[in-house]
Amino acid sequence: MPSPTRPNVARGFVVPIGGAERKKRNPLILERFVALAGGNDGRIAILPTASEMDDTGPRYVELFEDLGIGSAVSLPINQRAEAEDEGLIAELEEATGIFMTGGNQLRLSTILGGTAVAKTIRHRSAEGVTIAGTSAGAAIMPEHMIAGGTPGATPTPNKVTLAPGLGLTNALVIDQHFRQRDRLGRLLAALSYNPFMTGIGLDEDTAAFIGPDGVFEVVGSGAVTVVDPSKLEYSSMGQAMRGEPVSLIGLRLHILTHGDRYDTVSRKATAGS
Amino acid sequence: MPSPTRPNVARGFVVPIGGAERKKRNPLILERFVALAGGNDGRIAILPTASEMDDTGPRYVELFEDLGIGSAVSLPINQRAEAEDEGLIAELEEATGIFMTGGNQLRLSTILGGTAVAKTIRHRSAEGVTIAGTSAGAAIMPEHMIAGGTPGATPTPNKVTLAPGLGLTNALVIDQHFRQRDRLGRLLAALSYNPFMTGIGLDEDTAAFIGPDGVFEVVGSGAVTVVDPSKLEYSSMGQAMRGEPVSLIGLRLHILTHGDRYDTVSRKATAGS
Repeated sequence: MPSPTRPNVARGFVVPIGGAERKKRNPLILERFVALAGGNDGRIAILPTASEMDDTGPRYVELFEDLGIGSAVSLPINQRAEAEDEGLIAELEEATGIFMTGGNQLRLSTILGGTAVAKTIRHRSAEGVTIAGTSAGAAIMPEHMIAGGTPGATPTPNKVTLAPGLGLTNALVIDQHFRQRDRLGRLLAALSYNPFMTGIGLDEDTAAFIGPDGVFEVVGSGAVTVVDPSKLEYSSMGQAMRGEPVSLIGLRLHILTHGDRYDTVSRKATAGS
Repeated sequence: MPSPTRPNVARGFVVPIGGAERKKRNPLILERFVALAGGNDGRIAILPTASEMDDTGPRYVELFEDLGIGSAVSLPINQRAEAEDEGLIAELEEATGIFMTGGNQLRLSTILGGTAVAKTIRHRSAEGVTIAGTSAGAAIMPEHMIAGGTPGATPTPNKVTLAPGLGLTNALVIDQHFRQRDRLGRLLAALSYNPFMTGIGLDEDTAAFIGPDGVFEVVGSGAVTVVDPSKLEYSSMGQAMRGEPVSLIGLRLHILTHGDRYDTVSRKATAGS
């Protein structure tokens, strides 16, 4: 469950990005994130924990500064003990935007899960701070995170591995590099375990800007595949054997592109203008 | 449009198969086809035109004989002129089942399209003969055939090439090798051009046995992905630029496996027992 908000304080935007977002020409997603994080007056804290490359954090610092953020700082955390550091927590408390880079979402969840850093990200979100993440940084956002799986369109019982995520939303399960890595089957498998969530598959260079009202807007050059299992009439997930395809009857499917919106509460999609 | 039937004559089953159907252990699909084609008393005519390999036809002759068909014959046709041959037409008129092999569906459509062989297949279907086809042989069955396209889950205006098919059904557009070749995007693109059809994506070793009542049953080890665009609320296909993703709001999606059924008239899916 997301952290509770206080009266008259709106939750911040939660911005999962499908990976490989444009950084130089037409960086629509990062520009919009910089604006939500306060632009000239803002300060972005970058968490490069998912990545094992030392230059990932510094590269995003430079990028956000080029895009006009007031200041940006990279907070390298490579071990759980570092995620309790008071200096780092103070940085997160000061930030007006938090950005989680790509890499391996299991690295993110195993290093940050349950630490002071994870708790701080959650309460900063409840206090109105915008939290964005790309690729692995997007995968970790929901309560139920897709940790891994195999490609292909057809769901099977063992097609996906779920793990607890950061819990910035519990309405969605999020997959990324969606079109590029053929991930419909694992998203369907994740949904069929317990069809209370909506599934979103983010293409590369495509983001969902999830507002405090639970409505998200699509930004970027690809599509967001929305699978709504709320009207599911039948699932054979309970009986299917390992490797066997699973029957799912009565899913709703929307392909949303730049400017389209989806209300995760009413489960209604609307075309952009 | 399928050929009209005469009073009291039921149309034959139309059986598109997703390719790579099992031939030795548990050949459920081919066994069911052999039974529908009359079993011991039946005669199957094989059209290996899609394939450029000489042994494709003879291999299926042997296979169907092993599975207990009364007799089987391969009708090699490699040029349009051969598709007017009276001897071949007589073979098709005698057959109780017709089987089209895999290969290249454009080879099938360019060689057979508009010939006496194509017309005979159509009227034999209306007379009750079962027509099966695998891979390219499945693709060519509907009125609107998927001739080619590019892989990936997200539809774009140029993701798929359509061509006229044999017209054994006009309720469905059929894609094959579905899970194995990541073809959701091209199926969605094909549907979005004109959303009056239902789209089915057949995994390998998976078939739809379409009965004279328009209800099909799934047979095989994979899944049939059914996309029903009849409640489509919005499509941007009309405005999207080449290469740009297309918005599609309000699709229905079913993943059907062995024993499940779909009614192409009422557009209702039912789980098997």
